[in-house]
Amino acid sequence: MTGKDDGTGRTPGFRDTQLVDGPARPPGEIPPVPTPRSVTEGAVPLPPAESVPLSVICTVERHLDEILSSVPQPDPIELAVLDAQGLLCAEEVISQRALPAFDQAALDGYAVRAEDVAGARPNAPVSLAVVGESVAGAGVPSSIGPGLAFRVSAGAMLPTGADVVVPGVWTDQGTVRVEVLAGPPTGGYVRRTGDDVAPGDPAVQVGTPIGPAQISLLAAVGRERVSVRPRPRIAVLCAGTELVDVGTAPAPGQVVDVNSYALAAAARDAGAEAYRSGILPTERRRLTEVLESQLLRSDLVLIAGTFAPGGFDMVQEVLAELGQMNFRQVTMHPGPVQGFGRLGRDQVPVICIPGEPVAALVAFEVFVRPAIRLMLGKRQLFRRTVQAVAGQPLVSPLGYRQYLHGTVMRHPDGGYVVEPVGNGTEALLARMARANCLIVVDEDVTGVAAGALVTVMPLLLGG
Amino acid sequence: MTGKDDGTGRTPGFRDTQLVDGPARPPGEIPPVPTPRSVTEGAVPLPPAESVPLSVICTVERHLDEILSSVPQPDPIELAVLDAQGLLCAEEVISQRALPAFDQAALDGYAVRAEDVAGARPNAPVSLAVVGESVAGAGVPSSIGPGLAFRVSAGAMLPTGADVVVPGVWTDQGTVRVEVLAGPPTGGYVRRTGDDVAPGDPAVQVGTPIGPAQISLLAAVGRERVSVRPRPRIAVLCAGTELVDVGTAPAPGQVVDVNSYALAAAARDAGAEAYRSGILPTERRRLTEVLESQLLRSDLVLIAGTFAPGGFDMVQEVLAELGQMNFRQVTMHPGPVQGFGRLGRDQVPVICIPGEPVAALVAFEVFVRPAIRLMLGKRQLFRRTVQAVAGQPLVSPLGYRQYLHGTVMRHPDGGYVVEPVGNGTEALLARMARANCLIVVDEDVTGVAAGALVTVMPLLLGG
Repeated sequence: MTGKDDGTGRTPGFRDTQLVDGPARPPGEIPPVPTPRSVTEGAVPLPPAESVPLSVICTVERHLDEILSSVPQPDPIELAVLDAQGLLCAEEVISQRALPAFDQAALDGYAVRAEDVAGARPNAPVSLAVVGESVAGAGVPSSIGPGLAFRVSAGAMLPTGADVVVPGVWTDQGTVRVEVLAGPPTGGYVRRTGDDVAPGDPAVQVGTPIGPAQISLLAAVGRERVSVRPRPRIAVLCAGTELVDVGTAPAPGQVVDVNSYALAAAARDAGAEAYRSGILPTERRRLTEVLESQLLRSDLVLIAGTFAPGGFDMVQEVLAELGQMNFRQVTMHPGPVQGFGRLGRDQVPVICIPGEPVAALVAFEVFVRPAIRLMLGKRQLFRRTVQAVAGQPLVSPLGYRQYLHGTVMRHPDGGYVVEPVGNGTEALLARMARANCLIVVDEDVTGVAAGALVTVMPLLLGG
Repeated sequence: MTGKDDGTGRTPGFRDTQLVDGPARPPGEIPPVPTPRSVTEGAVPLPPAESVPLSVICTVERHLDEILSSVPQPDPIELAVLDAQGLLCAEEVISQRALPAFDQAALDGYAVRAEDVAGARPNAPVSLAVVGESVAGAGVPSSIGPGLAFRVSAGAMLPTGADVVVPGVWTDQGTVRVEVLAGPPTGGYVRRTGDDVAPGDPAVQVGTPIGPAQISLLAAVGRERVSVRPRPRIAVLCAGTELVDVGTAPAPGQVVDVNSYALAAAARDAGAEAYRSGILPTERRRLTEVLESQLLRSDLVLIAGTFAPGGFDMVQEVLAELGQMNFRQVTMHPGPVQGFGRLGRDQVPVICIPGEPVAALVAFEVFVRPAIRLMLGKRQLFRRTVQAVAGQPLVSPLGYRQYLHGTVMRHPDGGYVVEPVGNGTEALLARMARANCLIVVDEDVTGVAAGALVTVMPLLLGG
């Protein structure tokens, strides 16, 4: 009952639902008093079933489904190709041109007629008269006839009549006459008109992520602009009478607003155009004005604050006036209280997440990042997960999906090993900053033994 | 000798140096005339040894080493924390504050004295008088004595005298008096002042990549700005008399400048601040002016063009006037001709890469991206590589390291499978745009059998 388990004699993936969590409400007998270890390992007492109406309790999946089925995909916009980088193409780009635009030499050498050099051998070279030179960029087409050769550099237009390029190294590199020691077959070392793209071919297709290679191709077919799925504009706000801006020294009991910074950064990292709008006013009329104004200019509004399911603080009241807003007890830890609605004339999605900064970034990963990726049109909404061996025992509240910040490493023998940051205690800010993953412990698991496998979601943040 | 090999009966990793490539210059006997298959599979004739002075032939590693040992790391700059995202911290950020700043409740419940509730049991509850309520943000510290309790919400300041928070669910939730059914040990469910960060503790250390969690922590310790390694400013230029801008319809023999777009995009993707300066003037005085001006305002100048080792086109001449510029025959394919120098008063690094767009992006991956990452201060300069099973035979010129664009997929049975795009032919633009990796074939390998393992460098470009 201590939450400690060295895994000895247990099979990997061992789950013990007897560990740590008793019933939500202490039974008539002696309750499972948490030991210091289980207290510091994130054993969170559950709210009593009767204190939260069943109608506002929901699973992570149900809340996420509601968000994902309700966020709109912003209309495509046209951007300069360089600004389109990282976005998804929203049009079928048909090339009006052939690529290459003309028959050209694939390397430096001599453009000749294949039949003239077919029999060339080092001990029986073929001698041709060099009648000209074509360099890349020279636009006047030339022509050759039997017994003639044209010096060409890579990319240079092929003279008409020539159907092959003899690499310079297969010749004596002559300038007036050239001795050819070997002949490539017809078409050798020639890039033919339209080999890569023919007029009417699709160059970049709907849904293709635009990277340097796509930008190269778009420029080649003459496109300066392209239609893409735009970055959603996301207003990031936070609510709380205890909050002061980062430039202010907090008085006793006050807390610096870190969420509007961290969430704006996370939203940008996920691909959004994030606007950090900061702390919501505490004066009711100003609060309404700010919320209405953000609803008008945003594709999504994100608010971090300490809300209660069925609770009615001023922010929740004002949100309720603007549309249908649902606050719920989601069966996750940290930060079970989550809200979602579509508000204002344009039914703009509004996501409310916990105000505690670690819970806020967890909720961002679980609910907001997938919504942003959906708005961007991406197919892969979720981060990949891997299975990793837990380096130490973990405890988790029964019935709640627990997200613990951790550090995941490759094991020298293969696979991954994960450790929670801060010994599995509540992940405070400095500890969270050392994490590179979230450990996900399922609802029906209350204990993970050291050595058992857990699901890990690496948080790739460059570096 | 056809380059075809179904791998039957060959061990994985089979290398056959007999395939395709004969000596650089045809011997006295009949030369290995390339078959159509080997021609279209990237069999590139080598330049004859005597046509390129040995002094300008060098390996990929030597050229890369020279670049990496010569690029400077730009001085740290101070940025607003949100603009620091993705960059490396360049200072030791010491917290002047404690985090949390005050003792606070970790969850909703009752702040009490541990000794008062130590003996509480469901069948022997302890009754305490509720003398007040503390919510998050309330700044006036209260106090309690023996037999008293204070209602607290998560994040609320703990009254002095209280050393434990009894979770609400372990009580009868009373408002005047509360029946406590179980008591946590001293310190339970309390976040102590400085638990996370004590004054004088380092919050973010030199070299840490700044992501949302670091931004959260920086805001929490009151930092609005932070010193970081800046994005290097990179001017992207291209040279070639055949080039026209993307907005111009190319005349016969002309080619659209795609490199300045593609390379600017690739440089941004690598973390640089890229300035697309476009096509270099062909008039000598204007050319000098443009180059001098770009040297003054850039941390690195990148020029794509068709240069020759020891060649002297006008761009090469003007570059030579501005400093020591070395053009080399690097033993790689595509695009062996590479240049590097440090030019102008400030000895700004200048990297010249091939003008052929596929070779340009390959050279970017091999030489420029690691240089940008070094300038950013990143420890991991190179993309990870994986071993993948070749889905079809590959040929490669002897003595040259070949980079082929390909598509790599996970195999259902584990591991990876890779196919070159366009059947292993020269990767033109549209084909390159379908690739998600580079296949790297070592200098001493001329043939890779289907089923053999090859080194693959996945190009992660979002999506």
